[in-house]
Amino acid sequence: MCEANAYLIENNDNKLIMEAVDTVEPEGDGVRLVNIFGDQKFIKASVYSLSLVDHKIFLKPHNP
Amino acid sequence: MCEANAYLIENNDNKLIMEAVDTVEPEGDGVRLVNIFGDQKFIKASVYSLSLVDHKIFLKPHNP
Repeated sequence: MCEANAYLIENNDNKLIMEAVDTVEPEGDGVRLVNIFGDQKFIKASVYSLSLVDHKIFLKPHNP
Repeated sequence: MCEANAYLIENNDNKLIMEAVDTVEPEGDGVRLVNIFGDQKFIKASVYSLSLVDHKIFLKPHNP
């Protein structure tokens, strides 16, 4: 399987917010993550970078 | 391997711009794509959505 783990970039650190992510879709002022188990999570962030061979998605939060 | 194909969203159609993409990194007013063969491409676009199990990255062009 080719899912990836999603990390939120926080103060020079990265916080794992969801594992085994399949889809990332824009929704409202953020993105909706859905993993291969069907779990969903909405995050006020956008995709910052990808490193797919490492199975990583980095999301940058939208600051209020 | 868990690379994906990158598509540029164009007028309700999607144009394949690079296969076997490993990393996508922000650079200037766009993103730099690097595939598993080391080929690089700079695109004035940002990541719109992902469908990793389908090996697809969708990029939305930045309109001038």
